[in-house]
Amino acid sequence: MAPLNGYSTFKHFLVSSPSEHVAHVETNRPNKLNAFFEAMWVELGQIFAKLSHDPEVRAVVFSAVGERAFTAGLDVLAAGQQGLPGQDSSQGDEARRATQLRRYIVDFQNSISQIEKCEKPVICVLHGISLGLAIDMSSCADIRICSKDTRFAVKEVDIGLAADIGTLSRLPKVVSSFSWVKDVCLTARDFGAAEALAVGFVSQVHETKAKAVEAAIGMATLIASKSPVAVQGTKELLNHARDNSVADSLRYTSVWNSAMVQSQDFKAAVQSGIKKTKPRFEKL
Amino acid sequence: MAPLNGYSTFKHFLVSSPSEHVAHVETNRPNKLNAFFEAMWVELGQIFAKLSHDPEVRAVVFSAVGERAFTAGLDVLAAGQQGLPGQDSSQGDEARRATQLRRYIVDFQNSISQIEKCEKPVICVLHGISLGLAIDMSSCADIRICSKDTRFAVKEVDIGLAADIGTLSRLPKVVSSFSWVKDVCLTARDFGAAEALAVGFVSQVHETKAKAVEAAIGMATLIASKSPVAVQGTKELLNHARDNSVADSLRYTSVWNSAMVQSQDFKAAVQSGIKKTKPRFEKL
Amino acid sequence: MAPLNGYSTFKHFLVSSPSEHVAHVETNRPNKLNAFFEAMWVELGQIFAKLSHDPEVRAVVFSAVGERAFTAGLDVLAAGQQGLPGQDSSQGDEARRATQLRRYIVDFQNSISQIEKCEKPVICVLHGISLGLAIDMSSCADIRICSKDTRFAVKEVDIGLAADIGTLSRLPKVVSSFSWVKDVCLTARDFGAAEALAVGFVSQVHETKAKAVEAAIGMATLIASKSPVAVQGTKELLNHARDNSVADSLRYTSVWNSAMVQSQDFKAAVQSGIKKTKPRFEKL
Amino acid sequence: MAPLNGYSTFKHFLVSSPSEHVAHVETNRPNKLNAFFEAMWVELGQIFAKLSHDPEVRAVVFSAVGERAFTAGLDVLAAGQQGLPGQDSSQGDEARRATQLRRYIVDFQNSISQIEKCEKPVICVLHGISLGLAIDMSSCADIRICSKDTRFAVKEVDIGLAADIGTLSRLPKVVSSFSWVKDVCLTARDFGAAEALAVGFVSQVHETKAKAVEAAIGMATLIASKSPVAVQGTKELLNHARDNSVADSLRYTSVWNSAMVQSQDFKAAVQSGIKKTKPRFEKL
Amino acid sequence: MAPLNGYSTFKHFLVSSPSEHVAHVETNRPNKLNAFFEAMWVELGQIFAKLSHDPEVRAVVFSAVGERAFTAGLDVLAAGQQGLPGQDSSQGDEARRATQLRRYIVDFQNSISQIEKCEKPVICVLHGISLGLAIDMSSCADIRICSKDTRFAVKEVDIGLAADIGTLSRLPKVVSSFSWVKDVCLTARDFGAAEALAVGFVSQVHETKAKAVEAAIGMATLIASKSPVAVQGTKELLNHARDNSVADSLRYTSVWNSAMVQSQDFKAAVQSGIKKTKPRFEKL
Amino acid sequence: MAPLNGYSTFKHFLVSSPSEHVAHVETNRPNKLNAFFEAMWVELGQIFAKLSHDPEVRAVVFSAVGERAFTAGLDVLAAGQQGLPGQDSSQGDEARRATQLRRYIVDFQNSISQIEKCEKPVICVLHGISLGLAIDMSSCADIRICSKDTRFAVKEVDIGLAADIGTLSRLPKVVSSFSWVKDVCLTARDFGAAEALAVGFVSQVHETKAKAVEAAIGMATLIASKSPVAVQGTKELLNHARDNSVADSLRYTSVWNSAMVQSQDFKAAVQSGIKKTKPRFEKL
Repeated sequence: MAPLNGYSTFKHFLVSSPSEHVAHVETNRPNKLNAFFEAMWVELGQIFAKLSHDPEVRAVVFSAVGERAFTAGLDVLAAGQQGLPGQDSSQGDEARRATQLRRYIVDFQNSISQIEKCEKPVICVLHGISLGLAIDMSSCADIRICSKDTRFAVKEVDIGLAADIGTLSRLPKVVSSFSWVKDVCLTARDFGAAEALAVGFVSQVHETKAKAVEAAIGMATLIASKSPVAVQGTKELLNHARDNSVADSLRYTSVWNSAMVQSQDFKAAVQSGIKKTKPRFEKL
Repeated sequence: MAPLNGYSTFKHFLVSSPSEHVAHVETNRPNKLNAFFEAMWVELGQIFAKLSHDPEVRAVVFSAVGERAFTAGLDVLAAGQQGLPGQDSSQGDEARRATQLRRYIVDFQNSISQIEKCEKPVICVLHGISLGLAIDMSSCADIRICSKDTRFAVKEVDIGLAADIGTLSRLPKVVSSFSWVKDVCLTARDFGAAEALAVGFVSQVHETKAKAVEAAIGMATLIASKSPVAVQGTKELLNHARDNSVADSLRYTSVWNSAMVQSQDFKAAVQSGIKKTKPRFEKL
Repeated sequence: MAPLNGYSTFKHFLVSSPSEHVAHVETNRPNKLNAFFEAMWVELGQIFAKLSHDPEVRAVVFSAVGERAFTAGLDVLAAGQQGLPGQDSSQGDEARRATQLRRYIVDFQNSISQIEKCEKPVICVLHGISLGLAIDMSSCADIRICSKDTRFAVKEVDIGLAADIGTLSRLPKVVSSFSWVKDVCLTARDFGAAEALAVGFVSQVHETKAKAVEAAIGMATLIASKSPVAVQGTKELLNHARDNSVADSLRYTSVWNSAMVQSQDFKAAVQSGIKKTKPRFEKL
Repeated sequence: MAPLNGYSTFKHFLVSSPSEHVAHVETNRPNKLNAFFEAMWVELGQIFAKLSHDPEVRAVVFSAVGERAFTAGLDVLAAGQQGLPGQDSSQGDEARRATQLRRYIVDFQNSISQIEKCEKPVICVLHGISLGLAIDMSSCADIRICSKDTRFAVKEVDIGLAADIGTLSRLPKVVSSFSWVKDVCLTARDFGAAEALAVGFVSQVHETKAKAVEAAIGMATLIASKSPVAVQGTKELLNHARDNSVADSLRYTSVWNSAMVQSQDFKAAVQSGIKKTKPRFEKL
Repeated sequence: MAPLNGYSTFKHFLVSSPSEHVAHVETNRPNKLNAFFEAMWVELGQIFAKLSHDPEVRAVVFSAVGERAFTAGLDVLAAGQQGLPGQDSSQGDEARRATQLRRYIVDFQNSISQIEKCEKPVICVLHGISLGLAIDMSSCADIRICSKDTRFAVKEVDIGLAADIGTLSRLPKVVSSFSWVKDVCLTARDFGAAEALAVGFVSQVHETKAKAVEAAIGMATLIASKSPVAVQGTKELLNHARDNSVADSLRYTSVWNSAMVQSQDFKAAVQSGIKKTKPRFEKL
Repeated sequence: MAPLNGYSTFKHFLVSSPSEHVAHVETNRPNKLNAFFEAMWVELGQIFAKLSHDPEVRAVVFSAVGERAFTAGLDVLAAGQQGLPGQDSSQGDEARRATQLRRYIVDFQNSISQIEKCEKPVICVLHGISLGLAIDMSSCADIRICSKDTRFAVKEVDIGLAADIGTLSRLPKVVSSFSWVKDVCLTARDFGAAEALAVGFVSQVHETKAKAVEAAIGMATLIASKSPVAVQGTKELLNHARDNSVADSLRYTSVWNSAMVQSQDFKAAVQSGIKKTKPRFEKL
């Protein structure tokens, strides 16, 4: 797979280009079940921030190296030994520790939220062990697909925490049933690919990780062949709609499209439709 | 079918009354796959505004004439030839064209939103080709049912546009899975009746268009037999709930019902329940 | 079943403790199909307010005594005979009756909302006849499960009312399909356990009421074995997320966890994970 | 004063053009203290809707004919005799009357809100008697100025009503002191020009009505000489900011200006600033 | 002064009736500068909850006994000695103490918020020392007036706290200048009656406490002579407007008045206006 | 003045420490009237981000070097010559230019918003020429004071723009009168120190710039002597309150203080109050 230009300095992730205008980001710590430590999520945020404005990229696939795990989540052992900032109760008082913790959580959230803020659509492929942070990260993606062997869990209550990196904020808006969301978040129980599909958390299940990645790249390639003005506008407007009333969403949409409909892409696409040719769209 | 009184001047739609207190609106441009141009959506808005306050009407069915299409969407050919207002880059500068486009989009949104603002429940029946505007319009309806042959698509990205007439604003609040919504909106791929049912976009699928229309009229007739005070309040309160927090929704509900519970309909319905008779409700 | 300490004075509900840190609340008016009158919902609100801060309780199961009904809803006959406050049109004018009604509805809503405000997770088990108030109350619970014989209905339009005790405010945020929500709320038709499961209203269906209660107690026992700091935080943050944008939810989460992550529970849970022991958590 | 083209068919208002690109709307029922009845507010809404998109108009002055009154408010005598729709307690039940009243209030609000929705800035000049509807209407204007003799009052509680055409919705966001807002709205007491200036309800006070109108026309002429892209954007963004959080307002602003900053007006204005010439701006 | 019927069991406050339909609540701990401890704010909440639905009461004056202080705020000495719940760092861990503190703050907020939730207008008279809780409580009132000798301060930062009983939530929406709000809240400096008037925190300043109380009773008596339907609606709609967009406020207003305009009070008030008689309004 | 440790690499601003725990940031381009170009606002954002978490700093003064200008605003000449990104109409189409412009505006907003996001209070001192960006930046500060000679203007409409870096988003929430805000934003007219004080935009006016800076440092020193837990909490809660309903603000406050009230600062401050000593607070 050709590496994507400009991303070779990142250490914990592989970034390649499997097809034109498509980027593929892979977490690369397979011997530790792709468990995350701080330097990794900082880097992940930087990668997605860069992809967001990279004119060569129109769609992104996010998966992980190795057969066993998308990610086992936070590397708790490391975190448990060195502790989180502000957790050492011998240092500072409760308020100062709370401030350190809040800043730490906000920085962590900001890194992970770059997946959502990336202006290009992100398709996340989950497989194998997919715990804790796996849900936080994949909930930021636009589309989730997985392999049949995926074992998901919102694992945080099992380490004495309410999940705070995005799962609890996004999951109720990502899937259908609030009863199911409460069930998996309060019990920390595992669930599999079929259940994830039934409740709408993923929209496709494939036999193997390889096939799921192939499908994701196919979907990304399809999206990348379309007008980037239309695609990126669609992502932005759907995310805005999730968080706003219908009236506010319609107002924002009308302002957004007042510039965007002036694009050559509309004319090019309509002409191609009439002439049955493949349109070419400029970079964005 | 008896035409509904007062709607005979409309040119692009048939408006009839298949049963007591039920109106049936049918798009009537079957030879062009019921594709829409501006005069059509202006008229559609006027029809639903009129139905909203028409005391003879308690429930509405919305479908389309012909076997092939509910609608192929915007009549792109026409739009592509004459262009949208503000798209001719030789006229005015970018800001002035943007203003023209924004006004045009807002007017278009306002016409289609009349389906949602109509105080009476609207049941939309889709069949055959159901693209683009089909999703914008049906997302405004209260209940969606379809025939087995329906081919849906959020088609806008294929003509270089983010959908701006309501699909992106309403779809995330109408169906279950945000992953699925992103999938169909970003790829513009077709989906069929079974998939629409599985994700909850439609709530019934019937063998043929005729059977779907029959079922819709049956459901509308059932709704029309109930207290219009209760039915119209239920529609208003559900739409308010969609866009507000639970606390704000409860507050609004308590004020709404402070007048509505004084209605004779409550007493009539309770008495009918006790006496096993059919209640009569006054117009609204 | 051991009664739970401190709840013996309540008249219309049984409150027992089927396992450590689990409370079981049972509506106890089986000979009247567990239909509710005012003194009952006032008491129900008091019970859940008390459970909310009771340090012995970490999870709650809510079901009803008898085989025939979870509840037939509001005791309409009683309400119809004595009337609601403000409904006697010979007393006061419309505005004063509206004020009485609004206060009455708000008080009623406040009692039922205690189920949602209870800081401990609530698992509701429905069975048999489950009409009207059954939906209002169970929509406040965190998790809903039911037996196969359950007959649900949002029955209010059949007595000339828009449901005002919470169903219309919460249902659109609890299940998947807005089309389905509108269908059952506007037609007042019955639906069964399979349909409730398919749309995500319940997350489990069991053969009998006994088995459903057993499953609920099992789930409650599992939840009660986990860190109450984590569990109660998870409930609070999911409910906050439902009503707020993702950005606001992330901000609230970071402040919430700035205190909560300082807990011993995190350290205890991580240590237990490493040592494969069962952690002990202090009361909350 | 030259009449403004296209507005001669309106019966209750004079619409003239005192200077280039400036419209002057005057309520013209001086012998009845400019009291309003239904046909008047319907017409007023139509006038401001038309001005909103009229490319000849860039700023609007709104005042009233005659020396005694801007308006004495609603023509209560008329309203009291014929009653409001839905007030006749012999017709329909309480719920149906409530529905009629709600529709009537919403239509009335919509007419008056056209003053706020007009995309061009509106300067309202108050003088003499300025009661009830005077506050509803002027609160919709962008800038309020008055003559020294103005007597304001939020008069509605004196006729047994909470003001419902906009005063209570907008006044808390228009002036400084919530204590003062509550004072004048709850007591219905008069207040004069000096008090209105001190609390920020008006931003200028002039000796006579003539001088106030002259000042308003001067200000409107100044605004009309500036880039209409800049002016109309400023109005829109300030009104959006009033109703949204700072974060949402910044986001909306960035989208709005993404089209608007492309305008020739920016280049023309910058060049004029450098060359000390007067810029010319195209219509909008 | 005649005591008000039904309030004699309260221990820390005097509740009298200085004129028809007017209640006067006075904090009665003058020898301790009316400093508050927990039993006092619990009782205060109960009093205002009772006044809210008491049909004899249409307006409330809230002041304090003695010449020296409206209130010196929280009785810090007491609080400092016994500590707040959850502050003893030897008991429970940080998360459990945080939970205790949160519940304590919420209960405290709920008690004080009863002043705002009281459906009848509340006029607060401040005098002398008016620190900390004085601002929390008076910000809940509808109208604030004071005597010339009043010394206000948002004192909380001087005891190491951000004010959490309402000052920081309400003050930015009560007065004009955010720069001034930040100044007094961040520095904890004193400010006097003239400054409070200039920024709009109070709307009247009187020479002495006696005169301020007299003025408040006069204003309350005037408000109590008006339609309680109109007065209580005005309070509710202004408070709703403060927290909602103009569009949402107009919608809520139209529903509120759909019941309220049916009142006899409207007809009575209009008739009285025509006949120059004094209208009589029924209780509410 | 001692330079503040760690800020010497910044090129366009002086950062010193005039008293313990106080930072003083000065724009340093006096020969160009402190007009801003892109590298400057990027650096300004970095400085305030660094101050936000710098434990040595508890309050910040922001002013400008030189006697003539706080800032003349954007360096339009530079911007006019090189153009803004996306303004060259020969490059890309309208949609792509709009995207470039939106990204540019968002980055610019983010830099300036760091002044508001800085967790420590910021006192802004304005003097002399204070145009355009002067209002954007100072509206982000917590407290504004100025010298008598200050000439303010929201100048953007004079260069054909609606202000998009924060003025229109924040000004309506910073000062009293919406009529005045619209006046200065739509006319771009100058206003002086007295007018700025009267409407509440600034909270102090001093004879000279030197005296204003002295006063600001005095105020900052006072704030820096107080508990940083209390001060930073107060800033956060007031900014949250500005953008949220009272109910949401109270909820957020109770969670914030559940950690913060555990601080030693509360005990230290109460003890100091009793013992009349000066408390010492740890860093934050």
